[in-house]
Amino acid sequence: MQSILKYLADNESRFVDELCAYASIPGVSAQSQHAGDLRTSADWIAKRCETAGLKTVVHETAGNPIVVAKTPGHDSRKPTFVVYGHYDVQPAEPFDLWHSPPFQPRRVGRDVFARGISDNKGQHLAHLIAAEAWLKSGHELPCNLTFLIEGEEEVGSKALYGFLPGHTKELACDAVVISDNGIPSLKHPALTYALRGIAAFEIRLDGPSRDLHSGIYGGSLENPAMALCQLLAKLRDANGRITVPGFYDDVAKLSTYERRQLARVPYNEAKYRKFLGVPELFGEAGFTPDEQRSARPTFEINGLTSGYQGEGSKTIVPAWASAKVTMRLVPNQSPKKIIAAVKRHLQSLCPPTVRLTLKHGHGGEPYLVDPTGPLAKAALRALKSGFGHESVLLREGGSIPIVSAFKKHLTADTLLLGMALPDDNPHSPNEKFSLDAFAAGMRTSALLWPELAAA
Amino acid sequence: MQSILKYLADNESRFVDELCAYASIPGVSAQSQHAGDLRTSADWIAKRCETAGLKTVVHETAGNPIVVAKTPGHDSRKPTFVVYGHYDVQPAEPFDLWHSPPFQPRRVGRDVFARGISDNKGQHLAHLIAAEAWLKSGHELPCNLTFLIEGEEEVGSKALYGFLPGHTKELACDAVVISDNGIPSLKHPALTYALRGIAAFEIRLDGPSRDLHSGIYGGSLENPAMALCQLLAKLRDANGRITVPGFYDDVAKLSTYERRQLARVPYNEAKYRKFLGVPELFGEAGFTPDEQRSARPTFEINGLTSGYQGEGSKTIVPAWASAKVTMRLVPNQSPKKIIAAVKRHLQSLCPPTVRLTLKHGHGGEPYLVDPTGPLAKAALRALKSGFGHESVLLREGGSIPIVSAFKKHLTADTLLLGMALPDDNPHSPNEKFSLDAFAAGMRTSALLWPELAAA
Repeated sequence: MQSILKYLADNESRFVDELCAYASIPGVSAQSQHAGDLRTSADWIAKRCETAGLKTVVHETAGNPIVVAKTPGHDSRKPTFVVYGHYDVQPAEPFDLWHSPPFQPRRVGRDVFARGISDNKGQHLAHLIAAEAWLKSGHELPCNLTFLIEGEEEVGSKALYGFLPGHTKELACDAVVISDNGIPSLKHPALTYALRGIAAFEIRLDGPSRDLHSGIYGGSLENPAMALCQLLAKLRDANGRITVPGFYDDVAKLSTYERRQLARVPYNEAKYRKFLGVPELFGEAGFTPDEQRSARPTFEINGLTSGYQGEGSKTIVPAWASAKVTMRLVPNQSPKKIIAAVKRHLQSLCPPTVRLTLKHGHGGEPYLVDPTGPLAKAALRALKSGFGHESVLLREGGSIPIVSAFKKHLTADTLLLGMALPDDNPHSPNEKFSLDAFAAGMRTSALLWPELAAA
Repeated sequence: MQSILKYLADNESRFVDELCAYASIPGVSAQSQHAGDLRTSADWIAKRCETAGLKTVVHETAGNPIVVAKTPGHDSRKPTFVVYGHYDVQPAEPFDLWHSPPFQPRRVGRDVFARGISDNKGQHLAHLIAAEAWLKSGHELPCNLTFLIEGEEEVGSKALYGFLPGHTKELACDAVVISDNGIPSLKHPALTYALRGIAAFEIRLDGPSRDLHSGIYGGSLENPAMALCQLLAKLRDANGRITVPGFYDDVAKLSTYERRQLARVPYNEAKYRKFLGVPELFGEAGFTPDEQRSARPTFEINGLTSGYQGEGSKTIVPAWASAKVTMRLVPNQSPKKIIAAVKRHLQSLCPPTVRLTLKHGHGGEPYLVDPTGPLAKAALRALKSGFGHESVLLREGGSIPIVSAFKKHLTADTLLLGMALPDDNPHSPNEKFSLDAFAAGMRTSALLWPELAAA
């Protein structure tokens, strides 16, 4: 291993130059004027895969190209791992908030500022360079590697969802590795082993056939906005628990080990409260804020609409009221089952004075890799060696839908090994990537393959 | 009295012609292009007052003229009554929904269709004609009459509010009579003896300093939309009672007499429910729908606003949530006292996880004339004789703010003697006025003065 790590250390300045070259291509997938830049990005990373010694194919799609690159000489006796990344980036707007042009990478100490450098160019480039280090230093990789790098992650991965079912053989693997997320600090390298799922819907209550004069009629009919408030109010108790019958039935309990691991993540209540801008925190009783926002299911109202919302007042009983709602689900809750339970509960609670309509939105499964299983343990060991600090276990409160697609089509688990720091500003002005995280990420990736292959 | 009623009957076709002439002037106060038509309207009614035998002054104001016309030879031994009306009308839009041009009165049987003919030209013209009948048939009126006819009622009566304080002597009176409202049917002539007041405000709850990702943070902080729902939900119990402490303290109890009188108003639940378009009625337990919407106070949400309201979903914990609210108040509730009580209650209920802001809107006093007092009894007798049917007592759920101004500046009670029928379509296309109501209104007015003078 020493010569591989030496290769990484000796060539760091070249890798940083390459990172800057890659980050200078404005591959904004949301903006059609950047179609050419996305092609340039795909070509750049494909060529870089070739340079690293990989056999590379650029797959044309109805959208942006998908790059698939494999280590040479597939050995069916060895395990195979897929590394997923994306070369497209978020829009850079608003430009005037950037301290330097977003597509002219600017180095300040150990940080490099550029759009897309952390999300996701730097992170998958680190894996690619680690593979190169294995190949160029004359060592035999203990596994087969397949790099899968797409160009539509920031706009929903439509091309990739279409691509997966027809390329399951080409992408067959024992596990997927994704570095497209974060860690608490350089001293807290982390494996993210769980993601929350989601279930979205819209609740609408219809009352009178049109807005009514609240003076002439008010008092003799239900006010749909009040009915909606009373309906929604009943869905969460004073302890922050969702009151839908059966809601918690399938929730996987946090083990003592998991809670102890999550507690190792640095946390400062005053700082967190200030960051959110709230006068006081609130969450499900019996759980820490980190647990509440990653390992516990939620019921969130995302929007409320009813009646008059303009200036001043309008004296009406509104004809209807509606709420947009998303629930975050955790392993092993099923979006389908939860939506059915909520629907039943709302129907049973809804007064006969209004008409209830429930519109289903999207659903997404929660995700969990056994944090005490061999894959997780292997990843934790590689992280510890790569970063030089004890690694922690994290749960992510959001959803990464592609993980479920990999599970479905490749029947493979995903290991999430983030390299982004909390102040990397992904999706915001002045995005940056830490060269220390870049270097530690490369080392971790180099160390990961023998750990995973032996697991 | 017979010769006076004969005068009214004998000249009816002339009065209908006059009504049509008056209704053909498009005095839309909300539209500046009709400024000249408002002047023409004021001149028309002023001239008509002169023809009736009244001493008439057209007062210039910063807005539209105010017409004041008095019976000749003021006799200070007799009581004085003010008849209030307005010559301005609502906009006629949307024109395409009218079956005939809104300012070309069209007679169909005993109805005449035209904008403003019911609201309010026909109703004050009936009073004016009744006064003419007294004067032209050689009888001595048992009272002094002052007609006060303004041209900005449909846009807030700004000129009249400015005019009143400086003209209290000219308008001094023992009571005010207004016919600018409705009755259940020609067989149910009605005195409206009470109006609800109003108190408006806006409740806003602020949570995080910006919309937050509901996946990353949701669960660890209060959702302001949920907090708003839970706050508002607590303000009304399952019996439809407002839970604000002290809210009902000053509510004047409906007497057995009043309830019996209100019960005489024709009511059909299935028809009413269908008219509102609701699956089931709802209101404060222990009261009929007519009582709930006129004699009982309410707390109505007029609008709800929070977070994302566009298409699809947006997975956020919204930064804030707000509700527009108006409460209808009844005698003897005070808007000031009620607003203070609600404010205290909301502050005591608001969780420490959000910041509460309460913005006061307008307030309006409720209004009540003793339904068993001499003025009310006199009016009920006149109505019965004028319409030929037993009269009923009504409460109006809305507010007529000018009534409070008359109370304040003239220290005079107001009798509300509507002539409009439920299908008159005021403020809507195809407004009409019933010539039977017109004739009954004239007779009632002629009969009213001796009754009131003797009361």
